[in-house]
Amino acid sequence: MNAPAKTPLIIAHRGASGYLPEHSLAAKALAYGLGADYLEQDVVASRDGALLVLHDVWLDDVSNVAERFTGRSREDGRHYCIDFDLDEIQTLQFGERVDPATGQEKFPGRFARKAGGFKVVTFDEEIRFIQGLNASTGRNVGIYPEIKVPQWHVEQGIDLAALLIDALDAHGYLQQASRIYLQCFDAETLGRVRQQVGTALPIIQLLNSSTKVDIKLLRDITGYANGIGPSMKLIMHGMQPDGSFDLSDLVSQAHSIGLEVHPYTFRVDQMPEGCHDFDALLRLFITDLGVDGLFTDFTDLVAQFIRDA
Amino acid sequence: MNAPAKTPLIIAHRGASGYLPEHSLAAKALAYGLGADYLEQDVVASRDGALLVLHDVWLDDVSNVAERFTGRSREDGRHYCIDFDLDEIQTLQFGERVDPATGQEKFPGRFARKAGGFKVVTFDEEIRFIQGLNASTGRNVGIYPEIKVPQWHVEQGIDLAALLIDALDAHGYLQQASRIYLQCFDAETLGRVRQQVGTALPIIQLLNSSTKVDIKLLRDITGYANGIGPSMKLIMHGMQPDGSFDLSDLVSQAHSIGLEVHPYTFRVDQMPEGCHDFDALLRLFITDLGVDGLFTDFTDLVAQFIRDA
Repeated sequence: MNAPAKTPLIIAHRGASGYLPEHSLAAKALAYGLGADYLEQDVVASRDGALLVLHDVWLDDVSNVAERFTGRSREDGRHYCIDFDLDEIQTLQFGERVDPATGQEKFPGRFARKAGGFKVVTFDEEIRFIQGLNASTGRNVGIYPEIKVPQWHVEQGIDLAALLIDALDAHGYLQQASRIYLQCFDAETLGRVRQQVGTALPIIQLLNSSTKVDIKLLRDITGYANGIGPSMKLIMHGMQPDGSFDLSDLVSQAHSIGLEVHPYTFRVDQMPEGCHDFDALLRLFITDLGVDGLFTDFTDLVAQFIRDA
Repeated sequence: MNAPAKTPLIIAHRGASGYLPEHSLAAKALAYGLGADYLEQDVVASRDGALLVLHDVWLDDVSNVAERFTGRSREDGRHYCIDFDLDEIQTLQFGERVDPATGQEKFPGRFARKAGGFKVVTFDEEIRFIQGLNASTGRNVGIYPEIKVPQWHVEQGIDLAALLIDALDAHGYLQQASRIYLQCFDAETLGRVRQQVGTALPIIQLLNSSTKVDIKLLRDITGYANGIGPSMKLIMHGMQPDGSFDLSDLVSQAHSIGLEVHPYTFRVDQMPEGCHDFDALLRLFITDLGVDGLFTDFTDLVAQFIRDA
């Protein structure tokens, strides 16, 4: 096997979420132990403006909010973080992601929902945890926060981007050469952040699988970001009838204008259709295409691949 | 370097306690990620008979009990677990070990006390956590509970050994070939446990550094235990003037009558006097003496040594 040109960054997607409930502190500790370079934080706000490390703006899929706070849902039946104060959310039991309608786990082979209760983690707690670990281990594992739906938060009366930038500043992450990437799907928000804090804060523009990507879009992104975080489907459309990969040229296009490429999400238990070999998928993205980072639920498998390459 | 005859078990002493507060769930997750074979639990009881994973029978060195529950200490000034109900202890903030008189951290280079608050972990929570992780990862990491001062607990009105055996039974650990060692300093308690549950439960007799060990004592231990957990000082008394190790023949004596040997505690930040090379210490115990397991606060360093050997 050819060694990759350079070692890509392992971004622990919601922690070692393949093995422990996403965004639990234990999932972050496990990913740290398994060799992640960056630990990801999805960031949403509570009613009282606390920053929480949670993927959804509602609490239903990962907590017992519905039984704990009956009558507090919105019209769509969901219980939104932004309708609860931090001290209320701290009383909830969190666990593996389920379909709240059926109680069925989204990834049945992972940590069992019934195996244990976890608590919500605030952004501040998680940063102190990672910085504390970096101090005790001598490593320098980075953070990779995502501003979740910033426009929606503004409509609800909370400027999430501003709160997050303040928190990053308070924890020293706006200084040159800090170990951080800031990610978001919203280009307008990212553009404003870049104008406000400058280039010391590396920015990744997320791109979902239905984005129409062309060189003009990529050039626009270079105006405010250091790279892109595309769905892996924008790079690997699927499998050809002959078993080879059906590829776009997004990685080389992005690289040609100086953008880093951090595709998401590498999951051994949720592979692209028709693809059954996780190492072959990693070989494609790491060895052949030379991506700069990978979001993965399985830090250990990517670390093992890189060690063996 | 000669490869060791066999690979010794890495016992994560209070979790990855070199990097995160002892017995926090995060410290266990980190040790799991760093490659521990067994995760250690010290077990004490609360007033209402809950089993807690804590090293001391008092709460003062690792929690904010003194400020939270003023007036609840005993005559010696300490706040004992057994004087509090579980729901009271669950309100406390736990963290890195300090001298409660001065607030000074016992190991200043480790996770900072101020870096974060952790919660007490019950034995039941920890077992479900480890079994859940074993299910999601496909690994089979063991548990290594210690019955803390069982006679003292009996004097306080709680039969800790009986409660722990019940809990082990409930979680399936009394079946043949379970991944467990039970440890205790108290020979009488261990003898009773062996009589009660038989040889399916592997037992380790702990021996502190002032124990007078001879072949008769070791023969007695074979009557109820599978091995010994000696202070490393019983094996390595210190350094000779010429820089070589001053050794006992405890390991070969124990091995000659079929006892396993799991010495404690390997800490890179608390080395035996006169010894400054952690790898040399590991080489002595692993490669030269061939111990069967090691209690360590630094799972990663022992795992690295074994990988490189």
